[in-house]
Amino acid sequence: MSAALVRRLDSAAPGFTEALDALLEWDTSESSDLRGKVEAIIADVRRDGDAALVDCTRRFDRWAPADSGALEISRAELDTALERLPESDRLALTGAAARIRAYHEHQVEESWGYVDEAGNRLGQRVTALERVGLYVPGGQAAYPSTVLMTAIPAKVAGVDEIVMVVPTPDGTRNRFVLAAAAVAGVDRVFAVGGAQAIAALAFGTTVVPRVDKIVGPGGAFVAEAKRQVFGPVAIDMIAGPSEILIIADDAADPDLLALDLFSQAEHDAAAQAILLTPSADLVERTAAALERLLTEMSRADVIRASLSGRGALIRTRDLDDAVAIANRVAPEHLSIQVAPEQEQRVLDGVRHAGAVFVGAASAEVMGDYAAGPSHVLPTFGTARYASPLGVYDFRKRTSVIQLSSDGVEGVARIAAQLADGEGLTAHAAAARARLAGFDHNG
Amino acid sequence: MSAALVRRLDSAAPGFTEALDALLEWDTSESSDLRGKVEAIIADVRRDGDAALVDCTRRFDRWAPADSGALEISRAELDTALERLPESDRLALTGAAARIRAYHEHQVEESWGYVDEAGNRLGQRVTALERVGLYVPGGQAAYPSTVLMTAIPAKVAGVDEIVMVVPTPDGTRNRFVLAAAAVAGVDRVFAVGGAQAIAALAFGTTVVPRVDKIVGPGGAFVAEAKRQVFGPVAIDMIAGPSEILIIADDAADPDLLALDLFSQAEHDAAAQAILLTPSADLVERTAAALERLLTEMSRADVIRASLSGRGALIRTRDLDDAVAIANRVAPEHLSIQVAPEQEQRVLDGVRHAGAVFVGAASAEVMGDYAAGPSHVLPTFGTARYASPLGVYDFRKRTSVIQLSSDGVEGVARIAAQLADGEGLTAHAAAARARLAGFDHNG
Repeated sequence: MSAALVRRLDSAAPGFTEALDALLEWDTSESSDLRGKVEAIIADVRRDGDAALVDCTRRFDRWAPADSGALEISRAELDTALERLPESDRLALTGAAARIRAYHEHQVEESWGYVDEAGNRLGQRVTALERVGLYVPGGQAAYPSTVLMTAIPAKVAGVDEIVMVVPTPDGTRNRFVLAAAAVAGVDRVFAVGGAQAIAALAFGTTVVPRVDKIVGPGGAFVAEAKRQVFGPVAIDMIAGPSEILIIADDAADPDLLALDLFSQAEHDAAAQAILLTPSADLVERTAAALERLLTEMSRADVIRASLSGRGALIRTRDLDDAVAIANRVAPEHLSIQVAPEQEQRVLDGVRHAGAVFVGAASAEVMGDYAAGPSHVLPTFGTARYASPLGVYDFRKRTSVIQLSSDGVEGVARIAAQLADGEGLTAHAAAARARLAGFDHNG
Repeated sequence: MSAALVRRLDSAAPGFTEALDALLEWDTSESSDLRGKVEAIIADVRRDGDAALVDCTRRFDRWAPADSGALEISRAELDTALERLPESDRLALTGAAARIRAYHEHQVEESWGYVDEAGNRLGQRVTALERVGLYVPGGQAAYPSTVLMTAIPAKVAGVDEIVMVVPTPDGTRNRFVLAAAAVAGVDRVFAVGGAQAIAALAFGTTVVPRVDKIVGPGGAFVAEAKRQVFGPVAIDMIAGPSEILIIADDAADPDLLALDLFSQAEHDAAAQAILLTPSADLVERTAAALERLLTEMSRADVIRASLSGRGALIRTRDLDDAVAIANRVAPEHLSIQVAPEQEQRVLDGVRHAGAVFVGAASAEVMGDYAAGPSHVLPTFGTARYASPLGVYDFRKRTSVIQLSSDGVEGVARIAAQLADGEGLTAHAAAARARLAGFDHNG
């Protein structure tokens, strides 16, 4: 029975590398059909603006805005949603927001500068983006946590205006999502989703303002639309399915491991939950816990599809082997549930992961909602080069070069020499014109 | 005559906004012909590896490597290139490298962490990428400065291995470029260019190692290839034509302005050089200087094509108006050449620019070679959201969440409540399993 729920692998067995590669594979190829549909929607929005948004909303979200103004959800409606929320939910939202804000305040980088020995002033200005767009999914699953996890870093960054878009299928507005927008300090919210929402944010319409960057997760249409608008507008990333990788030893509690694997797997059938452990015994005990606890899960069907399709319990040679495999996978979430005396060594060995959760108390679910860091994380091995969504995604830098009329001498000689070497004679002339005798700098 | 060299605009004239928009336009549409050619090259390299690189090099660079090993340029050859360089060139390279290194050392961000009031440890690790690829153009123009400006930030970031690719048309190796690689501390260099080089870096071949991120400028094939491989590998940006925008007043020297405009325009016909000034007199004097000095320029044909096609002398209402226009353009390079008492005010007003050059001594050419900041900068208005290439491009972050068995309580309650609200019951169960009574964290 347990073999049917989740596969077992052994890192010492022949063919393990190939089996792991096959397990990690995920079809990222764009369908040209999807590409064409998204191109058409974007072209419609660029040409017809708000009228296209109203039309798409009627077709895809099955409700008819009275006019384009009806696409905007007012600040008053957000505030009302927050007021009417049960107190326990309201406190959870504001409690999570406070923790997320506190964490992200550590990410604010300041402008800096210095004066070199020749008296030249050099530095870098770090400033906020003017306007950003947040895409918040609102279909089958509506996630107030995603509002907090994207809007609060933008707010801490000092973005002038935060514009959120969220589909409201059949016209149903999710009050939890709207309340989260109020808590996070989102400036404007539009009840529009899909590729049409991305197009509106990228190019602007009469009611939806054009933004400088679009962040947040979405389905296939949203991902493809983000890909297509990238350039005129920045995007955060194209997210793949969510992943967890747990490194555990005999000190771990199989029931907790099972619940942690479930909470990844319940997202959708493509989600990936993997256990790495040197303990053959823990593999067996976890397999049994998965079987036993699955029956208590309301989303058991999704969990079963995910675990059987993309899950694995992998026995490793030792903990170092587990760490090496984790670095190869570069998972979105890495959970470490080992004996306390092993924790630091395992943590120190980790090089590539979106977020690391250390110790059994630090369940991955804490990071999804309230620990502090954003839950928007690099997936599909991109933790090799990418970072969690953060304040730095909403700020940008400008080099500042302020040479003095005395200090320029050495710099100008180097510049002229290199420009000569590159055959750029106007460059060389512009540099030499700043050499001695030059007195234009006041 | 002068009207033929560069257009004049007046920001107070009717239709100015439209004229400015038209001036800034640049065709970014991909040709499907180019797309198909690049797809084929990438597919060849993925399928045939080194054999495809040898074949492409024969076809596009017109020389025949004896075998795939002959594509690598040895460390000894780099060192020899540096030794044999004339002393003046060698000193210019090492002098520039020292300044670039000093500037970028200010960009290294350290890991950080804190303990919250409940005893939970939270933080972020900032670590270097393992392996990065630098594309260095080597066709009509070969730029040792680009080697320094891309490799040194990667080196300062602590990247384990820096792999450079540079085409050697007709087998001709540019010793200045190779010497720059030696100075910058590039680890491995391959004499391969174009889309085939990007494919090799993205997917790896037997001789060319796969990298995590590819940076550096290139022509149309390289830009399209970077676009296509993005995902499995990170890329820096797709660069547009180079741009300068100068804000000046009557205190500026028209000859210096002309040389600065020339040194942008000489790059290629698509390069953009624009002057903004409230002084009608300065417009005339600059126009005259352009006419007079153009005859002294060896690249006069390119300069003429660039200035007449995409250049402009724009008279503004006042300096504030010039600053407002600059922020709308968000130029790659912004030069400020105004009376000393105006400098700070103009600088403070700048919000969007890749690099700002303050004062007449700070010619843009200084930034191209030796001031310190990287000359790889956001073009085509992307300074609204993007930053100069820097150390931060070669480092990435990992969230670290280490909750204590006591401290987890408050976080777990919030997480369970929000998970309930989102209908994610396994998430809620995983959170509640960490509540009081739980004692798994040693």
